Amino acid sequence: MGIANGKEISTKQLCDIMEEAYRRGKEVLPQGKVATYIPELGKADPGALGISLCARDGWHFNIGDTNRRFTIQSISKVISLALALELLGMDKVFERVDMEPSGEAFNSLIDLDLISNHPMNPMINSGAITVANMLLGKMSFEEIQDVFRKVCEDPEMESNEAVFRSEMQNLSRNRAIAYLLQSKGILDDRVEETLELYTRLCSLQVTAVSLASMGMTIAMDGKLGNGESVFTGRTMEICKTIMLTCGMYDRSGRFAVKVGLPTKSGVGGGLVSVADNHVGIGIYGPALDDKGNCVAGGPILEYLSRELQIHLFQKNTYVDRMMEQR
Amino acid sequence: MGIANGKEISTKQLCDIMEEAYRRGKEVLPQGKVATYIPELGKADPGALGISLCARDGWHFNIGDTNRRFTIQSISKVISLALALELLGMDKVFERVDMEPSGEAFNSLIDLDLISNHPMNPMINSGAITVANMLLGKMSFEEIQDVFRKVCEDPEMESNEAVFRSEMQNLSRNRAIAYLLQSKGILDDRVEETLELYTRLCSLQVTAVSLASMGMTIAMDGKLGNGESVFTGRTMEICKTIMLTCGMYDRSGRFAVKVGLPTKSGVGGGLVSVADNHVGIGIYGPALDDKGNCVAGGPILEYLSRELQIHLFQKNTYVDRMMEQR
Amino acid sequence: MGIANGKEISTKQLCDIMEEAYRRGKEVLPQGKVATYIPELGKADPGALGISLCARDGWHFNIGDTNRRFTIQSISKVISLALALELLGMDKVFERVDMEPSGEAFNSLIDLDLISNHPMNPMINSGAITVANMLLGKMSFEEIQDVFRKVCEDPEMESNEAVFRSEMQNLSRNRAIAYLLQSKGILDDRVEETLELYTRLCSLQVTAVSLASMGMTIAMDGKLGNGESVFTGRTMEICKTIMLTCGMYDRSGRFAVKVGLPTKSGVGGGLVSVADNHVGIGIYGPALDDKGNCVAGGPILEYLSRELQIHLFQKNTYVDRMMEQR
Amino acid sequence: MGIANGKEISTKQLCDIMEEAYRRGKEVLPQGKVATYIPELGKADPGALGISLCARDGWHFNIGDTNRRFTIQSISKVISLALALELLGMDKVFERVDMEPSGEAFNSLIDLDLISNHPMNPMINSGAITVANMLLGKMSFEEIQDVFRKVCEDPEMESNEAVFRSEMQNLSRNRAIAYLLQSKGILDDRVEETLELYTRLCSLQVTAVSLASMGMTIAMDGKLGNGESVFTGRTMEICKTIMLTCGMYDRSGRFAVKVGLPTKSGVGGGLVSVADNHVGIGIYGPALDDKGNCVAGGPILEYLSRELQIHLFQKNTYVDRMMEQR
Repeated sequence: MGIANGKEISTKQLCDIMEEAYRRGKEVLPQGKVATYIPELGKADPGALGISLCARDGWHFNIGDTNRRFTIQSISKVISLALALELLGMDKVFERVDMEPSGEAFNSLIDLDLISNHPMNPMINSGAITVANMLLGKMSFEEIQDVFRKVCEDPEMESNEAVFRSEMQNLSRNRAIAYLLQSKGILDDRVEETLELYTRLCSLQVTAVSLASMGMTIAMDGKLGNGESVFTGRTMEICKTIMLTCGMYDRSGRFAVKVGLPTKSGVGGGLVSVADNHVGIGIYGPALDDKGNCVAGGPILEYLSRELQIHLFQKNTYVDRMMEQR
Repeated sequence: MGIANGKEISTKQLCDIMEEAYRRGKEVLPQGKVATYIPELGKADPGALGISLCARDGWHFNIGDTNRRFTIQSISKVISLALALELLGMDKVFERVDMEPSGEAFNSLIDLDLISNHPMNPMINSGAITVANMLLGKMSFEEIQDVFRKVCEDPEMESNEAVFRSEMQNLSRNRAIAYLLQSKGILDDRVEETLELYTRLCSLQVTAVSLASMGMTIAMDGKLGNGESVFTGRTMEICKTIMLTCGMYDRSGRFAVKVGLPTKSGVGGGLVSVADNHVGIGIYGPALDDKGNCVAGGPILEYLSRELQIHLFQKNTYVDRMMEQR
Repeated sequence: MGIANGKEISTKQLCDIMEEAYRRGKEVLPQGKVATYIPELGKADPGALGISLCARDGWHFNIGDTNRRFTIQSISKVISLALALELLGMDKVFERVDMEPSGEAFNSLIDLDLISNHPMNPMINSGAITVANMLLGKMSFEEIQDVFRKVCEDPEMESNEAVFRSEMQNLSRNRAIAYLLQSKGILDDRVEETLELYTRLCSLQVTAVSLASMGMTIAMDGKLGNGESVFTGRTMEICKTIMLTCGMYDRSGRFAVKVGLPTKSGVGGGLVSVADNHVGIGIYGPALDDKGNCVAGGPILEYLSRELQIHLFQKNTYVDRMMEQR
Repeated sequence: MGIANGKEISTKQLCDIMEEAYRRGKEVLPQGKVATYIPELGKADPGALGISLCARDGWHFNIGDTNRRFTIQSISKVISLALALELLGMDKVFERVDMEPSGEAFNSLIDLDLISNHPMNPMINSGAITVANMLLGKMSFEEIQDVFRKVCEDPEMESNEAVFRSEMQNLSRNRAIAYLLQSKGILDDRVEETLELYTRLCSLQVTAVSLASMGMTIAMDGKLGNGESVFTGRTMEICKTIMLTCGMYDRSGRFAVKVGLPTKSGVGGGLVSVADNHVGIGIYGPALDDKGNCVAGGPILEYLSRELQIHLFQKNTYVDRMMEQR
């Protein structure tokens, strides 16, 4: 099997590694807390944990609560960005959203108002709301949902109406961000429409398995298992880079060093991680750390990255060996 | 030749690519300005430009002013960090310096004072001064200089006394940073000693060629051309990640997307760039952009990255082909 | 006549002083600019200038465009605060709004989001929107308008519908502030209703004469010329202090030193100034400085303050003389 | 007796008021903490409290620990400012220091580095260090000390060498501020000399009685009891205004509203308060609140201000009566 980066690994070895990763994740769950800023999210089970790993051949290795549905939340930002890049092109997108990591909390207004006059990147709320505004009128929600379903190889994905309505009733901070963006000319007048689309995309329901498939689609540069291409390689290259530098809010730098995989989290407890060209990983664990990331994500991904030798800058020993033979 | 990532490339092709990159760099030089905050730096020739590319086999491809000596400045931060990691271990280093990209200008006090109580990362002045403090008493300047010489395969490297003295006389902002760090307990009482070491390391003189060798040493995980290992693979992995996320100040995110190579700049006009496992690139161009990075660096590296297919997330077609044959 | 603080002054002298003040104001008008963030405001005549001074005996001394109507804008914040203090009491009001000068621009979100979790004071937009929220349901717009008419001794005061509608269509920044306040629990759910009341109060139309009367009402601790009491002395004491420390945005400190009179400005070009117990001053000059204050206000009030000896801390020589005779 | 503002008050009444003020101060002492950032200051007795009130005729009314010596600390900023104003004139002083209240903590670098390029006002450390730099070379420490002695009618005032040395050894934050000021061209090269003068002035030892006299000198526009003029009226007018808007750090606004007296605090536990033209008040209480102000100061001064009717904007009924008789 070709899961690990440049070395053979047996199914038995992989299962052992997954089990140990799961055990390490389980161990830190008590340190996390379920998001409660929206009543519906507060109902999640803080003890839930699932890991799904999707290999190049499409095989999934699952452990724990991998079939439980939860809302995708901020992970939707990656697919929305990819769509905007395909529809408008890189220049038009990055005219309105920057691509710099932000040293602030994920929904901070400071950078936006003080440092720059643009959202710092498309992985924070201000940036993703701007991206949603770009999609308005170009694609309907249903069409976008179809793309989400394809990318996640999850044709039954639907939005959770209860969460959607609950979020719409607790939208004051995002509304503040959106109107601030409008006041700076970054959002057009369709503020409320934009907020609705943004929130609806956040309420789409996935599983750890669908996130692992999403990771694999990104790892394969937008190509699905059936060979169909959803996104271009250039779009995926941009998304992977931005996930790496900005995907974990103000813990992105630490994550890049310790895990070395483009990763995006959502307050619903989801996490998608990409070992380029090799593996997609999906995690579900609604117990969050103080930055709003799945608390088990760090220990699980750090362990998997090391054991599977998939850190971005880990030497590709198998490949090296082959090259040296030249 | 094995320069490009997974595809054969002829020497002629490479020379053409280098020439075009040089031409593009030359074109934007008039948009930049030589650093003048230190009188000695202001004497540099804004029209100077040199590119050196070092391949795996140790061959250098040079164009332009590649033998002119200039001070390494902030590029020294990478080697200092590597030394601290080797001497103290990752945990001890990152107890005192964080590893998050900073959305502020390279020498800003804001993040340090307001957001965090630690330097945001070792690539900004506050972080590098803290790293210098860690080295004090563990290695003499001469010993550190020896490591710099090895990493850059440049045994004649010496510090520029005029620049060193000029910087010591214009040190008020760094001195402010250092005393603020002391007030927060991050620097011990050897503040002036630390500033002197930090400044002396910044005043070491390199060429584009030595920077290309430095890039190659990092690309090869700390191994020199003669097989000697200066740093461990883990140390280099950390340095490459941090160069990628933080190496270009508040333009690091844009650089990661567009160039996709761990890169570090210095106000002396130097730039070192690493195509992991493949290529080291050194650039000299003292005309800087408004963020303090060599203004020609962006266009040159963007072009080289695309033509040589060495962007971090670019598909490794040659490798792919081999793997598919399995 | 008892206009000047502790010294006799003739009508002729006063007229000369007013003329010189007017001349000095006229002189700096070309340095200012009419507010254009709302199209309707942009129509004002940048050359317009009027000064009205109301003495203790009710006499008005007018020069220039003192009968032209313009929207009261932020000057309404003083009367709204006074109303909230009367209706809810000091403790309830300052639970939700702080009373510290803010070093930021008048509509900044930074302090609100980063430093404090409350509006810094009731003279900036976030604070005044919070105060408007306090008035909702306790008084109708018509009732509040009646108070404004009384305080300004201007029974014909009406809101300017064109400006009101224009502001409601360009409300994105205030809307951002209001929703941010809601997200922090400082505003209740009546956000849009609050914004409408706030904006409607801003669109009430006054003249320099009505503002001079307003200043006199405050100077006399809430007592009108006919002896009727609109506000208590304690409420006026608080308003005067806050006008002094916060009334001129981030130029309040300079104004307090140089002019030494509680003063409040509005982007419509109005300015009300209070020489406690002695004089009320109203100015109209829609050409604004870079902080959004009437550009002529500084030179005019600085001159009047010195010539009439009404600076807050100017020695009350006439009174002193009397006291020494005791 | 002419202590209260415009009304007769008997000695007995005044003693009762002082006693009640003292009782109220004593009550809140347990909520405060002695400053410990400098070991020497940490030795102060948190239970100590003294109030001294100086009337126009020079009489002092004392209660509690009014003869204990303590270091003047930041209260020295008022006299230093007055000296700089006399020596250089208003324009030259306010070219280098602004006069705006700062919404940040008393020694914050944020405003200085981010918002403005000047110290926000002369009552915070950055501003006072700049003022000390202005005095260098114009007056010796001994000459300045003589002025302090006069202003406080305290000919035996000396600096506390132990505190001075302790502060000089714990100066890193002020040193950071000073070098940042140098880097911005606000301080000249005599940084260490400036810090020494600044710190030495902070270590001068006063009593509550000397502070009450200092308050009276300011209240009388710079005139001593013996008729000698130390400062001009204009200088005192500026100092009083700045004490009012900036004297209590980021609680100045609240203090102005509730107490309504120009006041300055020091971390040594001192407080000087000025009822213009009427009374000087000195307080000693080293137990500080979280902003670094004497914790008992608020309740004591709020009570005295109300009972003695000396709030800045309180109606001067006695004077009014006289004026109405005209």
